[in-house]
Amino acid sequence: MTSLVVDNIGTLLTNDPDAGAGATGVVRDAALVVDSGRVVWFGPRDDQPEGTDERVDAEGRAVIPGFVDSHAHLVFAGDRTGEFAARMAGKAYSAGGIASTVAATRAADEPSLGANLRALVAEALASGTTTIECKSGYGLTAFDEARSLQIASSATDEVTYLGAHLVPPEFAGRADDYVELVCGEMLDACAPFARWVDVFCDRGAFDRDQSRHVLEAGASRGLIPRIHANQLGPGPGVEVAVAVGAASADHCSYLSDSDVDALASSSTVATLLPAAEFSTRSPYPDARRLLAAGVTVALASDCNPGSSFTTSMPLCIALAVREMRMSPDEALWSATKGGAEALRRDDIGNLAVGARADFVLLRAPSHVHLAYRPGVQLVAAVWRQGKLCG
Amino acid sequence: MTSLVVDNIGTLLTNDPDAGAGATGVVRDAALVVDSGRVVWFGPRDDQPEGTDERVDAEGRAVIPGFVDSHAHLVFAGDRTGEFAARMAGKAYSAGGIASTVAATRAADEPSLGANLRALVAEALASGTTTIECKSGYGLTAFDEARSLQIASSATDEVTYLGAHLVPPEFAGRADDYVELVCGEMLDACAPFARWVDVFCDRGAFDRDQSRHVLEAGASRGLIPRIHANQLGPGPGVEVAVAVGAASADHCSYLSDSDVDALASSSTVATLLPAAEFSTRSPYPDARRLLAAGVTVALASDCNPGSSFTTSMPLCIALAVREMRMSPDEALWSATKGGAEALRRDDIGNLAVGARADFVLLRAPSHVHLAYRPGVQLVAAVWRQGKLCG
Repeated sequence: MTSLVVDNIGTLLTNDPDAGAGATGVVRDAALVVDSGRVVWFGPRDDQPEGTDERVDAEGRAVIPGFVDSHAHLVFAGDRTGEFAARMAGKAYSAGGIASTVAATRAADEPSLGANLRALVAEALASGTTTIECKSGYGLTAFDEARSLQIASSATDEVTYLGAHLVPPEFAGRADDYVELVCGEMLDACAPFARWVDVFCDRGAFDRDQSRHVLEAGASRGLIPRIHANQLGPGPGVEVAVAVGAASADHCSYLSDSDVDALASSSTVATLLPAAEFSTRSPYPDARRLLAAGVTVALASDCNPGSSFTTSMPLCIALAVREMRMSPDEALWSATKGGAEALRRDDIGNLAVGARADFVLLRAPSHVHLAYRPGVQLVAAVWRQGKLCG
Repeated sequence: MTSLVVDNIGTLLTNDPDAGAGATGVVRDAALVVDSGRVVWFGPRDDQPEGTDERVDAEGRAVIPGFVDSHAHLVFAGDRTGEFAARMAGKAYSAGGIASTVAATRAADEPSLGANLRALVAEALASGTTTIECKSGYGLTAFDEARSLQIASSATDEVTYLGAHLVPPEFAGRADDYVELVCGEMLDACAPFARWVDVFCDRGAFDRDQSRHVLEAGASRGLIPRIHANQLGPGPGVEVAVAVGAASADHCSYLSDSDVDALASSSTVATLLPAAEFSTRSPYPDARRLLAAGVTVALASDCNPGSSFTTSMPLCIALAVREMRMSPDEALWSATKGGAEALRRDDIGNLAVGARADFVLLRAPSHVHLAYRPGVQLVAAVWRQGKLCG
C-alpha cells in the first residue's frame, strides 16, 4: 500500500525531462502516487498502480511542484509603507532604506521576529511555496545577525548569512572595517546557523573586492556563496559570482555581454526577482537574453519590507510572462526547478520519482492560468512531503 | 442596541469627505457601528456609542469599503488559455477573439453558465468585491442575450445589456443589420432584465453612429448608457459617451485633449481597467492626465476570459499605483467610491453614516498595503449589508 494517490489530474507538471514532454514534463489526465513523503509513481491515470490508503480527486485541475522561492528576507521588524508611497510618488529606490529596517529589527525581541517570520512563511505556503530561502541582513552586528539566523533556522533549512547587506550607520565611512567584522567575529558567530553566504554587491552597498572577500571568507567556513548582483546598475557582481562559483547571481537587471557569457559558461544560476522591479518601478531584467544564451534562470520573490514586500510566486510568474516575455512554461519551470537549482537541490522543484512530494493543486485546469489569471488565489491545496498543509 | 461594532480599527477608510480627512475620509484608531445592514456611526474608538450585540476586534488592522467593480463580463463558457499564451508570445490582442467565447457560451446550458458566474462572483467576494457589475455580450442573439442577462440577474443588481459587444459571425459584413437587431427584437427581449446598456465602440467592433444608436435605443427603454471607449486606439467613444450622458466611459486608453476636456465638463466617469492592459501587454491609460483635469476616475477589473481574466481589485489597485502613478489613496478611492459613481450609486463604495455596511477587514495596518504587498491575499474578512460572508 502506498500512502496517497492524487487522481484525475488534468495537467500534471513534473519538471521531469524523462517524462518525454520537454523540460516541464507535462502529463495530461494523470495520477501522482506518493509514499513516505516521496513521489513513487506518476503517469497517465489509466496506468496507475493499485492499492493506496488515501485518494484525492483533482477533478481535472492542475498539479504542479511546490514553488521554490530561493531569495527572501523574512527576519525583520517594522514595515516601510511610507517609503513605498514616497517611491510610488517619484522618489528613487536606494539601498539606504535598509537601514530603517535594521534599526527596527535590532530593537525587536525574538518572539516578535519569529512571529513575523512564521506569518510570512505561512502566507508563502498558502500561495504554493513549499521551500523558501531566508537571509539575515537586518541585524548587522555579530549578535543580531546570529540571532536572525537562529530564528530563520526555526522555519527553513535554507538559511543565508547576509551580514554584508549594507554598511550599518555606526560604520559609516569605514566599510572595510565592517567587512573585516563580517568576515571575522560575525562570521564566527553566524557560520553554525547558515548554509549559504551572500553579499549585496552594488552601488551604495559593497564593491568587487569587498564582495569577493566576504564570499571567500564564508566559503572557507563551509558556506556556499550566492550574491545580490547587478540590481541597481552595471557592476562586478556577476563576475564575482562566477569567479567564486556561486550557486546563484540574483537580480541581474543590468548585465554586459561578458556577464551573460560568463553565466552561460558557468554553473551559476541567474535568479530574477521581477516583484522587486514591480515594487521599485525599475526596468525588468532581460530574461530572453539569458535564456537564449543558455543560462539557467530561476524566479524568486525577494520578499522584504523595502523593495518587494510580497511572498507571491504566482505574481512573480505573471510578471515574468507579462514583463520579461518568459513563456508560461518557462516561468513555471524557473519558479520551481529553477529555484531548486539555485539552491543546489534536486529533491525539490520537481515531481520525478524519488522527489519530495511537495506539490500544489491549482483551482485551474492548467499551470498557464497562473499567468492568465493574475492576482487570483488559484492555490486550492498544498502538500509538503506528502502531507496536506493548513 | 445596534447589531455590530467593529472596534480597534487601525485605519478606517470611509470615503466620507465630511470625516475631515480629504476624499478618503481616513480615521485612525477607529470604530464602525452597523445596524440593520447600514453604517450608523463611525469615529474615534474612544467616542463610540455603547450597547451592541456583536463586537469584532480588528486588532489594529485596516477596514475599507467593499470594492465596487463596475465593469465585468461574467456570463460565459470556456476559457482562452491558448489565445493568452499566443498573445504573450507576441500576437496582438484584437476584438475578434470574443467570437470564440460567443460560440462556447451559446453551446453551454444555463446551469453551467450560472455555476461559472457564481464561482467568479464568489472569487471576487473573497478578494473584497461586494458589488460587481455584469454584462451580457457573449450571446449575441435575442435568446442568448436575454438568457445571459437573466443568469446575471441571479447574482447582481448591476446588469448590463451588451448585445453590441461584437458583430457575430452570422452577421459578418452586415453590421448595420446586426445593430438593428440589437436595437429592436434583442432589446425587446433584454430590456426587462437590465439596468444598463453598453456598446463596444472601437475598431473591429462598432463605430460612432452605430454606438450612439445602440445607446439611445437602450435609453429609450429606460436603460442607462455606459460604453467601452477608446481601448484599442483613438476614436469617438468618449464623444459618444458624453453626448448621450453615459454614466461611464470605460478603458480610455487613447484620449485626445478634447476627449479629456469633454469628460471633465461632464458627469461621465472615466473607468480605467489596468488589468486589461496588463493581460494584453498594452499601454496603460494616463490616469494622472485625467485626474489633473478633474475627471472622476474609477477602477474596475474588466474580468472576462479574453483580455483580463482576473476578479482581483487588489491587483487593479497595485497596477494603478505602479503603472498609472495613482497614489494608493487615489487608487483605493477609485476602486470603491469611483466604482460606485460609475454605477450612479451613493449607498455603496463608502462607509458614511447611512451607507450600506459593505466592508472589508484587511490583514494589514493600512490600505496602502494593497499596493505595497502586490499579489498577497490581504483580505481577512468581508461583510455585506452588515453580514459576515463566507
